[in-house]
Amino acid sequence: MKTDIEIAQSSKMLPIVEVAKNIGLTEDDIELYGKYKCKLSLDILEKNRRKEDGKLVLVTAINPTPAGEGKSTVTVGLGQALCKMGKNAVIALREPSLGPVFGVKGGAAGGGYAQVVPMEDINLHFTGDMHAITSANNLLAAAIDNHIHQGNSLEIDSRRIIFKRVMDMNDRSLRSIVIGLGGKPNGFLREDGFMITVASEVMAILCLSNSLMDLKERMGNILVAYNLKGEPVYCKDLKVEGAMALLMKEAIKPNLVQTLENTPAIIHGGPFANIAHGCNSIMATKMALKLGDYVVTEAGFGADLGAEKFFDIKCRFGELKPSCVVIVATVRAIKHHGGVKKEDLGKNNVEAVAEGIKNLEKQIENIKGFGVPPVVAINRFITDSEEELKFIEDYCNKLGVKVALTEVWANGGEGGLKLGEAVLDTIQNQESNFQVLYESELTIKEKLDKITTKVYGAKGVVYTAQAEKQIKELEKFGLDKKPICIAKTQYSLSDNPQLLGRPEGFEVTVKEVRVSNGAGFIVVLTGDIMTMPGLPKVPAAEKMDILNNGEIKGLF
Amino acid sequence: MKTDIEIAQSSKMLPIVEVAKNIGLTEDDIELYGKYKCKLSLDILEKNRRKEDGKLVLVTAINPTPAGEGKSTVTVGLGQALCKMGKNAVIALREPSLGPVFGVKGGAAGGGYAQVVPMEDINLHFTGDMHAITSANNLLAAAIDNHIHQGNSLEIDSRRIIFKRVMDMNDRSLRSIVIGLGGKPNGFLREDGFMITVASEVMAILCLSNSLMDLKERMGNILVAYNLKGEPVYCKDLKVEGAMALLMKEAIKPNLVQTLENTPAIIHGGPFANIAHGCNSIMATKMALKLGDYVVTEAGFGADLGAEKFFDIKCRFGELKPSCVVIVATVRAIKHHGGVKKEDLGKNNVEAVAEGIKNLEKQIENIKGFGVPPVVAINRFITDSEEELKFIEDYCNKLGVKVALTEVWANGGEGGLKLGEAVLDTIQNQESNFQVLYESELTIKEKLDKITTKVYGAKGVVYTAQAEKQIKELEKFGLDKKPICIAKTQYSLSDNPQLLGRPEGFEVTVKEVRVSNGAGFIVVLTGDIMTMPGLPKVPAAEKMDILNNGEIKGLF
Repeated sequence: MKTDIEIAQSSKMLPIVEVAKNIGLTEDDIELYGKYKCKLSLDILEKNRRKEDGKLVLVTAINPTPAGEGKSTVTVGLGQALCKMGKNAVIALREPSLGPVFGVKGGAAGGGYAQVVPMEDINLHFTGDMHAITSANNLLAAAIDNHIHQGNSLEIDSRRIIFKRVMDMNDRSLRSIVIGLGGKPNGFLREDGFMITVASEVMAILCLSNSLMDLKERMGNILVAYNLKGEPVYCKDLKVEGAMALLMKEAIKPNLVQTLENTPAIIHGGPFANIAHGCNSIMATKMALKLGDYVVTEAGFGADLGAEKFFDIKCRFGELKPSCVVIVATVRAIKHHGGVKKEDLGKNNVEAVAEGIKNLEKQIENIKGFGVPPVVAINRFITDSEEELKFIEDYCNKLGVKVALTEVWANGGEGGLKLGEAVLDTIQNQESNFQVLYESELTIKEKLDKITTKVYGAKGVVYTAQAEKQIKELEKFGLDKKPICIAKTQYSLSDNPQLLGRPEGFEVTVKEVRVSNGAGFIVVLTGDIMTMPGLPKVPAAEKMDILNNGEIKGLF
Repeated sequence: MKTDIEIAQSSKMLPIVEVAKNIGLTEDDIELYGKYKCKLSLDILEKNRRKEDGKLVLVTAINPTPAGEGKSTVTVGLGQALCKMGKNAVIALREPSLGPVFGVKGGAAGGGYAQVVPMEDINLHFTGDMHAITSANNLLAAAIDNHIHQGNSLEIDSRRIIFKRVMDMNDRSLRSIVIGLGGKPNGFLREDGFMITVASEVMAILCLSNSLMDLKERMGNILVAYNLKGEPVYCKDLKVEGAMALLMKEAIKPNLVQTLENTPAIIHGGPFANIAHGCNSIMATKMALKLGDYVVTEAGFGADLGAEKFFDIKCRFGELKPSCVVIVATVRAIKHHGGVKKEDLGKNNVEAVAEGIKNLEKQIENIKGFGVPPVVAINRFITDSEEELKFIEDYCNKLGVKVALTEVWANGGEGGLKLGEAVLDTIQNQESNFQVLYESELTIKEKLDKITTKVYGAKGVVYTAQAEKQIKELEKFGLDKKPICIAKTQYSLSDNPQLLGRPEGFEVTVKEVRVSNGAGFIVVLTGDIMTMPGLPKVPAAEKMDILNNGEIKGLF
């Protein structure tokens, strides 16, 4: 069997100029990065101002399991399928981070015959967006410590600096560090830490901005620290938001590539799905909606986290109206939610499906709660029994939800035709009445009540003393009237990764509340959230290589 | 008066495809990065294997002074002048680092009417080479700490890790840090520090490699640490040189841009001129020699450091044969070397010129010592008196060296015509018998004797106990038979920045000796060498901005 990189490298790509032409773009609209990647001019949005938007389809999933669901693969495969059906479809995806590429994942751009290409470039530096974010972030970080070193006229309290340095690498040793050793020439000693670039607020800002000027203003609004009087200090107080925006002048432009079947794919921005909102940029999605009649996009983790943030943060800020949501599941993952151990997932077990499907049921209810019609995609495995598949189909039918088997990994767009039909049928026959779950003007606790009870099915929220204090502080400075971005385990509807299926009667514990004031949301942490991953015992990097003939090994 | 960025942004650039065509390149030879930048395929070298090389002209300078000499500006201006004279000239330059751009310099791509463009892109992310280097470096750094955390089968001595993390930013707080706080999940605690990316061995390797496979092998040879038995541990022991080479697969390709007068300029690599060798990449220079009849390049700092390393490291590894060396000086800088204070540099003072010119005299002797004919370029200022200029001219004539006034900053190529004539005349009439100063096979001390006495004019070398120990260790492991890369103050021929002009009778103190085993040279430190700059009180970043219409402020 061919590996992903082998499939990707043997694919016949169109020159990206051709892909762009197919969606009505001229050479003036694009900037080439080699022959198969380009940046899209922001003028495209202005030029197509009066053109009606395409239909927006979100691909999400049940709570992820070790069995794997293949959300990105289905997203790519669905886009390919729609094109195969003669529709003008555009895919909008997140950019991968180098950290996981060298860690365990070895790459992320779909899989099998449902990939975006050139896979090796997308997984490495791509068009440099991640590096621009790293640079802008670290310029601000350097400016903070430099300000203190040079006299600290803003009276920044070095014990209360919130803004961290970032690196696009899995490097656990940098999670918690002490900087400024070595005496006076090296500045003041203090505790600090690095996050991975995709966890940075700068990344979230890129993804939520509507223009370069909007981005600059948001950069200026980043809360970086408190001063000795306890008042907030913002990035704009350090006067580097202009330089940061300058560093982002190319990164703000969405990137166009293609799938293995030459479907246009806009890949732009990749914020963490825990402390940030986990979707590609608003500008990329908006551009895709102007260029395609159907836009297929995805959001990080399961629907409880990913779709909720997609709706309540991205759609709110971008004024987007999704027409349909695809919920991806596998028989194996449903059985895992039904309590089956990993080694037994290949065995026929309808009882476990009947138990585990409650997770899917809840996600379906949630999507309906947002007013958007859902479709279920079962990403088929060879071990799935007809009986199990039939059970899921019947179950979904009872809920009035279309369900389609997909085999896009093995067959590309051809394997997604049934899903494509289900999606088109749903868009045509079921109206979307999308609405956000809550108003930003509510208090933080009111907003959290809505999310945890309505979306997670919790009976309530418990706040630690620290969280209570932080909420009061944000209220005091008027920084609380923003949507909520919850950082929670992705493995459960609850905040306990052990509670699979559809848990009930649980409380969600809020441990910490922060503001990403530039991005424009409140981050609520319900557990220990990793913002800097580590490398595994044998990192994927050890298997990577490039040979003299250009052949690449180890990206998969 | 227009600023550099205003001049640059109002210039009429040719599409880079046209610039490439003018030096015989087709669209298959290049990869576009937007309309005005491209990468050059490494196949160009192979295709032109049998073509005779052009003539190589190095631009260097007297020891730099606060008065400024304008070496890069003269390099660009000379290239422009040669083109104006109908010659097929190509410029080969280093890439700027983001750190100094945001610190004090605000950009570096020549100046006035002798600039490379698009200046704003070259000064920001350009084609991402710096970021690729940062990523490759930090992957190795993460792999080292991960290896220790995951069981340390190589028995790396965490007290003796040599390889550091890097960031392309001026951030003094990261010079000396403690990493791995927070207990077991975050790895082992140890001292560490960041360097600026351009100071990394990975950058030096990029610049000294002859192919991607050569680069991979050199990456593998980086000495990263010693083990508990005191033996060297190399990058290849951690098995990440393949992944590092993969990260560098685009960065290894030279970049083509143009000057304000559309002269082709290849910009590639930018190693520090102290702990590394301070020249653009060998591959860029070799490619330029295949594409141009005349190639104008530069080396960092004054001729004692820059030209010496250019000859003994770059030309040695690249088998390059320079035809002529331009030594840049200004009347003001010569007077500074003659003991004049900054505020008096504008006053006529032939006595000071007569004293300060001894610095120039020594640099001329040195260049001649390498067998290459020198030409002196006086970069003219409005305050220069005829009497002072005449003195310098007569002095150089007595030494048998051509001297030319240049006004390239104000007049572009037109202002460099006299220098162009002097260079062409020198190449035509004075044979170059270039030879390196020493054989790599000599001992470290023998090599240092040659450099310090012959090039610096010292009477000898003093070694600290630490340096003695380090030399013995390198000899023990057979790591000493490599050329020397001296890190020394650029302000003096000696290792004391206060000794201007042509000091005599001094000894050079060697404080530390390290090996850059992948790059292939021994680094000898003669003082406190800064490998991570800091930001000034008011960083250039504070004045930078980008406006809604795309106008850029603060890059100059």
